[in-house]
Amino acid sequence: MRITFCCTGTAPEPWLQGLRAALPGADVSLWSPGAPAADYGVVWAPPQTFIDQQPGLKALFNIGAGVDALLRLRLPPGLAVVRLDDAGMSVQMAEYVCQAVIRHFREFDRAEADMAAGQWAFRKPRQRADFPVGIMGLGVLGSRVAQALQAFDFTVNGWSRSAKPAVGPLAHVRTFAGEEQLPAFLSASRVLVNLLPLTTQTENILNHQTLSQLQPGGYVINVARGAHVVDADLLALLDSGHLAGATLDVFRTEPLPAGHPFWQHPKLTLTPHTSARTLRDESVAQIARKIGALAAGEPLSSLAGVVDVTQGY
Amino acid sequence: MRITFCCTGTAPEPWLQGLRAALPGADVSLWSPGAPAADYGVVWAPPQTFIDQQPGLKALFNIGAGVDALLRLRLPPGLAVVRLDDAGMSVQMAEYVCQAVIRHFREFDRAEADMAAGQWAFRKPRQRADFPVGIMGLGVLGSRVAQALQAFDFTVNGWSRSAKPAVGPLAHVRTFAGEEQLPAFLSASRVLVNLLPLTTQTENILNHQTLSQLQPGGYVINVARGAHVVDADLLALLDSGHLAGATLDVFRTEPLPAGHPFWQHPKLTLTPHTSARTLRDESVAQIARKIGALAAGEPLSSLAGVVDVTQGY
Repeated sequence: MRITFCCTGTAPEPWLQGLRAALPGADVSLWSPGAPAADYGVVWAPPQTFIDQQPGLKALFNIGAGVDALLRLRLPPGLAVVRLDDAGMSVQMAEYVCQAVIRHFREFDRAEADMAAGQWAFRKPRQRADFPVGIMGLGVLGSRVAQALQAFDFTVNGWSRSAKPAVGPLAHVRTFAGEEQLPAFLSASRVLVNLLPLTTQTENILNHQTLSQLQPGGYVINVARGAHVVDADLLALLDSGHLAGATLDVFRTEPLPAGHPFWQHPKLTLTPHTSARTLRDESVAQIARKIGALAAGEPLSSLAGVVDVTQGY
Repeated sequence: MRITFCCTGTAPEPWLQGLRAALPGADVSLWSPGAPAADYGVVWAPPQTFIDQQPGLKALFNIGAGVDALLRLRLPPGLAVVRLDDAGMSVQMAEYVCQAVIRHFREFDRAEADMAAGQWAFRKPRQRADFPVGIMGLGVLGSRVAQALQAFDFTVNGWSRSAKPAVGPLAHVRTFAGEEQLPAFLSASRVLVNLLPLTTQTENILNHQTLSQLQPGGYVINVARGAHVVDADLLALLDSGHLAGATLDVFRTEPLPAGHPFWQHPKLTLTPHTSARTLRDESVAQIARKIGALAAGEPLSSLAGVVDVTQGY
């Protein structure tokens, strides 16, 4: 069995070593143009040439949760695409979102700034009931984020394209589904957490029309993709005061280009796409396990994280 | 039944109205020197005169979780002291501590500072296994904080004066007890969360000897009382590099006096005693319920939050 590795922006050696150790029978190598055909690809944003030169691939394993970069390529029909399924990402996402929600709700950012300015200031406690949180995207990550927020007694609403059963981590989430229920979801939420996959349907979904339906003093936390947000609309609603602020981890262009108005905006908290990092050891173990299962003849449908290429996630 | 209210630094009217609404049969009034004797006192840091002029009191209800200010007074023997039992405090404490732990562990403070300086910087993810958290004080607040941290997969150690059974929220906490096990607890922890009551035994407990036993790169979160910490020792260990930093919500003197070296220290994050605020509605309801129970003849031992005055908590 041959495995080829083609991950833009990732140091390959530790991955190659990890995959070789986990799959001793496999021939694992770094892809370069003209490399021999492989059975499985381990990829992150590969070039179109990679796809075109590897017609024998049975499955592509994406080393991130979002497959939008991969699905922008022309893929041969029937090529299986499998994304990371948790692999240590959901706890990181829960940390990032809870930290941002708590920091905003409890005004710890302001308290720290007061103290840094030498001021011991009293602020009236806010009411938790005034800060319902809405989560867009209720997959593995969204479900864990919902559960984590509920442990702090927040009211949590959830929205997804198709209706989700109210069981497990979503048992106490008020769920909304589809375009018809989006206005009701937005107007029931003050803090908005975006965890949607990026598809042609969700691109630009956070725009003037949707964001202005959030409750007054709304707060946006974007941990999905920059292209979900219409930057100018977000800025206009921050400047009008309808939105109190936003924490943004992802941007339309990354790194965020010099001169972009997000830099230095007083109502924005920015981080450099660090909310949920791919953890190498966990990811190698998961991908090796899945490749092993396919090689042993198990059906693709037995794997977690198989992407519906027509839906885009 | 007569209830007298004497809370330093608290606007009395909303409390008086709340108590009157909750206990329609009671005579609820604001204490002033020479006021008639009452059956129950609702207090926060009252003057000694209050105690001396109210010999008929059956119980004092403290509107905070810590009774150290109250127990510094000369109280008549046999006077019952009851502190707030949660009343919305434990969730606030869980929020504060999780926010501080996550912010430090994930380096979100540094990421935000990088971005504010216009720098998109990559930082290698830290390993969660390198950040075991130790909680001192395993009462209602400590238990909830332990549970909240475990939801983010942190290893949690706990220390208390007397051994606690490993059940309920402490089921997966590695617990240590008493002075003999304090060194083992400290050396098993990198992040230290202080939630101890302030007593003659715990005053100055965070000093050079104890803090230097934390794992290298240690981090201190103090949400109990300023007098637990020997300020100069904390500063020395921050400056030597053994401690990476601290988040402090409480101080030996509050407000923190001008010119104190904690102001502006680059390794300190400060907030103005805001970690767990007394929530008036919840507290009024809880105290009214407890007074009602005592007035109906239920024994003191049936109430949650009864203070052992000899132990100091």
